[in-house]
Amino acid sequence: MSQAAATPAKRLPFLSERHIDPHAYPDGVAFHDGQYLPMSQAKISVLDWGFLHSDATYDTVHVWDGRFFRLDLHLDRFFGGLEKLRMTIPFDRDGVSEILHNCVALSGHRAAYVEMLCTRGASPTFSRDPRQAINRFMAFAVPFGSVANAEQLRTGLHVAISDKVRIPPASIDPSIKNYHWLDLVRGLYDAYDRGADTALVLDFNGNVAEGPGFNVFCVTDGRLTTPAVGVLPGITRRTVFDLCAEIGLAVKAEAIGVAALRGADEVFITSTAGGIVPVTTIDGAPVAGGKVGPITERLMALYWKRHEDPAWSSAVHYP
Amino acid sequence: MSQAAATPAKRLPFLSERHIDPHAYPDGVAFHDGQYLPMSQAKISVLDWGFLHSDATYDTVHVWDGRFFRLDLHLDRFFGGLEKLRMTIPFDRDGVSEILHNCVALSGHRAAYVEMLCTRGASPTFSRDPRQAINRFMAFAVPFGSVANAEQLRTGLHVAISDKVRIPPASIDPSIKNYHWLDLVRGLYDAYDRGADTALVLDFNGNVAEGPGFNVFCVTDGRLTTPAVGVLPGITRRTVFDLCAEIGLAVKAEAIGVAALRGADEVFITSTAGGIVPVTTIDGAPVAGGKVGPITERLMALYWKRHEDPAWSSAVHYP
Repeated sequence: MSQAAATPAKRLPFLSERHIDPHAYPDGVAFHDGQYLPMSQAKISVLDWGFLHSDATYDTVHVWDGRFFRLDLHLDRFFGGLEKLRMTIPFDRDGVSEILHNCVALSGHRAAYVEMLCTRGASPTFSRDPRQAINRFMAFAVPFGSVANAEQLRTGLHVAISDKVRIPPASIDPSIKNYHWLDLVRGLYDAYDRGADTALVLDFNGNVAEGPGFNVFCVTDGRLTTPAVGVLPGITRRTVFDLCAEIGLAVKAEAIGVAALRGADEVFITSTAGGIVPVTTIDGAPVAGGKVGPITERLMALYWKRHEDPAWSSAVHYP
Repeated sequence: MSQAAATPAKRLPFLSERHIDPHAYPDGVAFHDGQYLPMSQAKISVLDWGFLHSDATYDTVHVWDGRFFRLDLHLDRFFGGLEKLRMTIPFDRDGVSEILHNCVALSGHRAAYVEMLCTRGASPTFSRDPRQAINRFMAFAVPFGSVANAEQLRTGLHVAISDKVRIPPASIDPSIKNYHWLDLVRGLYDAYDRGADTALVLDFNGNVAEGPGFNVFCVTDGRLTTPAVGVLPGITRRTVFDLCAEIGLAVKAEAIGVAALRGADEVFITSTAGGIVPVTTIDGAPVAGGKVGPITERLMALYWKRHEDPAWSSAVHYP
């Protein structure tokens, strides 16, 4: 404790009244405590259980060319997570939908990444009983950011398989979309160390699970597979199932071993942040010919085409 | 999408410039972006990876009767976590120590719960690459809050054993003190449903792991044991080992089955927030005679006595 010796001669620092924020924020609009605000104002207390215990759920939907994509499915998942975590918010589905529309319209973004979230909140006395906390709903719209840039979408991602194990369902139910990502973040650093763009982590049986913010598919002999358990039930993952059903491709959720992934004809990942993104290199070795495969290309085209379909999308009403 | 029909006739809501905060906060002082501030100002952006991906580490130390308790051990653990997460902060151990002292001194609290934390931060462009984020250090001091109230300290806690499984070390290294608590929070709700005060969750082998913010010990035939793996290496847990060594009690970290815990002569939990706290009921059944045991009582007394010892504590220099 150098402090014990040093302090007596020192004066205490000044206690400011209001925080001066030196940081920059992306251009966007948040809904917070009933107010629509710039992103610089979208902050939560460090005492909120949503931060202090990652006791929160959320969902992310995207807006493309001025239209929400499959918002209903995202709302289903979000309200499902709230119920499982025993959280309540003062808005129904239509109320949340209206708030999300307002955030995007006020932001003016034609391509946006839109998040709705609820934290456990906090009690004014900093009680340790979560039942005394008041749950807090927030939402925000920022510019659309993809897991892949234009070059990566064209030539495919280089993915490394990390030995980190995705948090298992016995600990955290993955159908509650959650912010527990330290396993994925550490997998990402493993990937960077090996010169890859992003990572896949394993499940508890040593099979392939998912990556930071995405599910994974492989195509072998014209048949698609994606990991079945211990992964987020992604909306883009589901969209691949829906598209496959429409065009008569076989797709199944089942265990995928690391060797099966490496030996696949095509590999791609799915995410709200980027859609369907090809993977052409795994741990430095090319997937099949190392080029984006025909089934991946076909699904990518269909995926973006369906963003205009009123059955799967809804227009934002900009001012 | 009811919105599609409803919006055209509606005007967009007003976009405010600054958030008006309707919430109350505990009395305390935070250090944030180089500024000392009231707790109402201690907030992080929702875009910080520390919130969005729970990509953060922290440590909590307590001040009792105007003295920090074992601050050096908490600083060791915090700086260890930073290194493992590849985070850097612009302060060394003495710098952090000085900031913590200042927070407590400015707060005036003689009994305080003091937290230091570091988040991954964010990049102004909301980049998905954590290497582009600027790590953010914060600290705060709020009134000391115990996991147990005075009555519970006297008569012992009622603990329920949840079937939730603590996030395993293969996913998250528990020596990195982290905010991944949804398993513990859900265990807590299981406990409330059964009329208990708090919960214990299991490890992957079905043995006892830990609870929300505490380690657990049992005493059987005069010998102490505590779970060995997959648990936070708690400073109060370590303090029990140190006290046992001084007074010649046998203590060992090893697997503890649920039956062994239920059949113990004494059970207690350890936490920075409360010290050593007796457990006298497990799932509705009394532990041994249902009274606080003699070894638990002896360790509790020693634990608090040592808060005056300059070898284990350091005075806060209040103005």
